[in-house]
Formats: sequence, structure tokens, C-alpha cells
Amino acid sequence: MNYTPPLARLIERLQSLPGVGPKTAQRLAFHILKRPETEVEALATALVEAKKQIGLCQVCFHLTADSVCEICRNPNRDESMICVVPDSRDVIALEKTREYSGKYHVLGGVISPMDGIGPEQLHIQPLVERVSKEKVKEVILAISPSVEGDTTTLYLGQLLKPFTRVTRIAFGLPMGGDLEYADEVTLARALEGRRDLD
Amino acid sequence: MNYTPPLARLIERLQSLPGVGPKTAQRLAFHILKRPETEVEALATALVEAKKQIGLCQVCFHLTADSVCEICRNPNRDESMICVVPDSRDVIALEKTREYSGKYHVLGGVISPMDGIGPEQLHIQPLVERVSKEKVKEVILAISPSVEGDTTTLYLGQLLKPFTRVTRIAFGLPMGGDLEYADEVTLARALEGRRDLD
Repeated sequence: MNYTPPLARLIERLQSLPGVGPKTAQRLAFHILKRPETEVEALATALVEAKKQIGLCQVCFHLTADSVCEICRNPNRDESMICVVPDSRDVIALEKTREYSGKYHVLGGVISPMDGIGPEQLHIQPLVERVSKEKVKEVILAISPSVEGDTTTLYLGQLLKPFTRVTRIAFGLPMGGDLEYADEVTLARALEGRRDLD
Repeated sequence: MNYTPPLARLIERLQSLPGVGPKTAQRLAFHILKRPETEVEALATALVEAKKQIGLCQVCFHLTADSVCEICRNPNRDESMICVVPDSRDVIALEKTREYSGKYHVLGGVISPMDGIGPEQLHIQPLVERVSKEKVKEVILAISPSVEGDTTTLYLGQLLKPFTRVTRIAFGLPMGGDLEYADEVTLARALEGRRDLD
């Protein structure tokens, strides 16, 4: 390859990003070389500062630049509901729906013995403490259906039921989803979760 | 959106990259937050250093961290041939073929009056100087076929023919390409460029 060394280094670094292969890395690198220096420095600064400043919320383990995240600090959010999700990304996805006004708890993953992730590796103990101490009326488990997700949901259900009501989000046919093209498991879940018409 | 400010800034900056929309930017940002700080700093440094150190070769205008690029400095490369390409990326692509051992000249684009790019905005004058001064036996124009590319090729042909032999790379059906699925212009070019069997 005839990349000049600083370019080769940049392309190599860009390739460490998810979904970025050699071709994309090259395209990104050439784009970056054409941008003004101030813009490139701003990107570099944003990278380092995000990494340095962002940590986990002490209460719910959502990503935040403060010790306690904005959602936990917001007095307008319903403290009596906690929605439990595996990842901070799930919080963002749920917030986009604008349908939920309670609090969250980010587990940091799901129980997966194959990957060496047991309950101790997740933020489960602080969740139990929150639920047992705070006046929590409902815990919603919003964990994707999979072997690991279902295990985590069952585990948390048993753990939290002594303290409060525990629910799980619904699974079924997605909006616009076609019966004919849905996989069997989704259809089975959709049947299982059927409800009486109002 | 409930992104904490440093995360929002990072996502915004990542979105300025080509082919990176809000979803990809979010995915990249979350990935970056999960990597060790040293790795993120290395990426940031690679960005800034590539931008600061890389300029254009004084001779051929290929990207380089030195004043004259590696290809121009290489005494094993055939000085009597110059391959003219619009972009540094084209040099990399041609180098990958390992079929060409001459020198290059990077134009920095193609003539495109609609975008305000005339011959003066490209590195054409230095090319004429190279061709007129150096002992160049052949100039190969390797510019993609398009209205602008063809214009540039014709323009350069007229300009350089008084000094040396000027050729153009072949256009036609790509390897593995199916006649049935080739577009008309490609097929027309393939017919036009037909050669006698050996």
C-alpha cells in the first residue's frame, strides 16, 4: 500500500470502529483530509472529551456527564416506576417514544454464562436496593426476547416480585409487520400475548 | 433527546462524516465510550496528526507527509510515464493492481464548470510543465467516463499532445460483468473499444 504513514495510521485507527472496513476507513480518512483543520480538531476533541467526561449515573447507571443523570434529577418524572433495560441505548430508544415518564435502570448487559456474565457483573444489586428502599409501584422489564434476555427477565422477576409489581413489555408482530413474513417465534409470542378486544 | 452534552456533541461531530447518519453516529459514539481511554486518544491523535502532517507532493500532488511523495522519490519507477488521475484515491486504486510502474499526476478533480471548477482550479499547469521539461514518453489519462471526465480528458489531450504520446485507459465490460445487465453506455464503449483477437 502506498499510504503515507500518518494516513496509514489514521485508516488503521478508523478501522477499529464498528462497521468500518478498509474501504470505508479510506473514504473517511480522505474526507477528513479535505476538511478544515479546525473541524478535524473539533472532532478529535469531541472524542476525547466524551470519553473523559461521560460516566455512569450513580442511581440508574445511564450514561451521563454528571454524577446523577438528567432523568434521575428530573422532578417531573414518576419515581414510582422503574423501567429496567440492558443498555443506555435502550433508554434513548424508549425516550424517543415519549410514552414513558418514569425512571430507568440500566443493567449494563444481560445474564450470559457463555460470556462469563452473571448477575454480579450487572447492576442488579443496586436495582434491588432501589426497589426495596424507594416507593416503587412497578418495575417494567424491557429486555429483548432471546435466551439470555429471557433468563435475565425471569431472574429479575423472581428477585423483585417480593418488593413490588413486576411487568414485562409486550412482544408480538411489529407495526407494519406482515403475518406471512414474521418468524415463528415472533408469531408464537404474538399469539401467546393476545388480548380481548375492548 | 436525552443525550448528555458531551455525547450529543460527539454524535453531532460524527454525523459530519460521509455516510454517517444519526443512527450510525450513535452506534459509533456508544462504541467509543466503551473503549479504553488510550484507544480513544490514539484515534483523536491520528485524526489531528494526519490532518496536520499530510500535504500534497510538490511534484505530482499526491497526498504525502513529505514534500515529495514516495512514488516520485522512488528511483525504480519509470520516469517516462505519467498516469494522470483526478484524485489521490485513484493512485491508491491503481497501485493495488501492481500493473503500473510509472509516475502519477493528481489533478485534484475534474473540469466541471457547473461547480465552478475550471482548468485553473486543477493542477494542470504543473502537469504541462512536467511533460514539457521531463523526458516523458507517454501520458496515460485515467479519468472515469462522465461528462466532466470526458471533457477533462479531451482538454488534457489537446494540451499535451504537442509534447508526447497521450493515451486513455480502456472502458468496457468489467470483469465478471454480464452483457445482459450492462448499461447501454458501457456496452457502447465496449463495442467502440473492440480489438482484434491476437
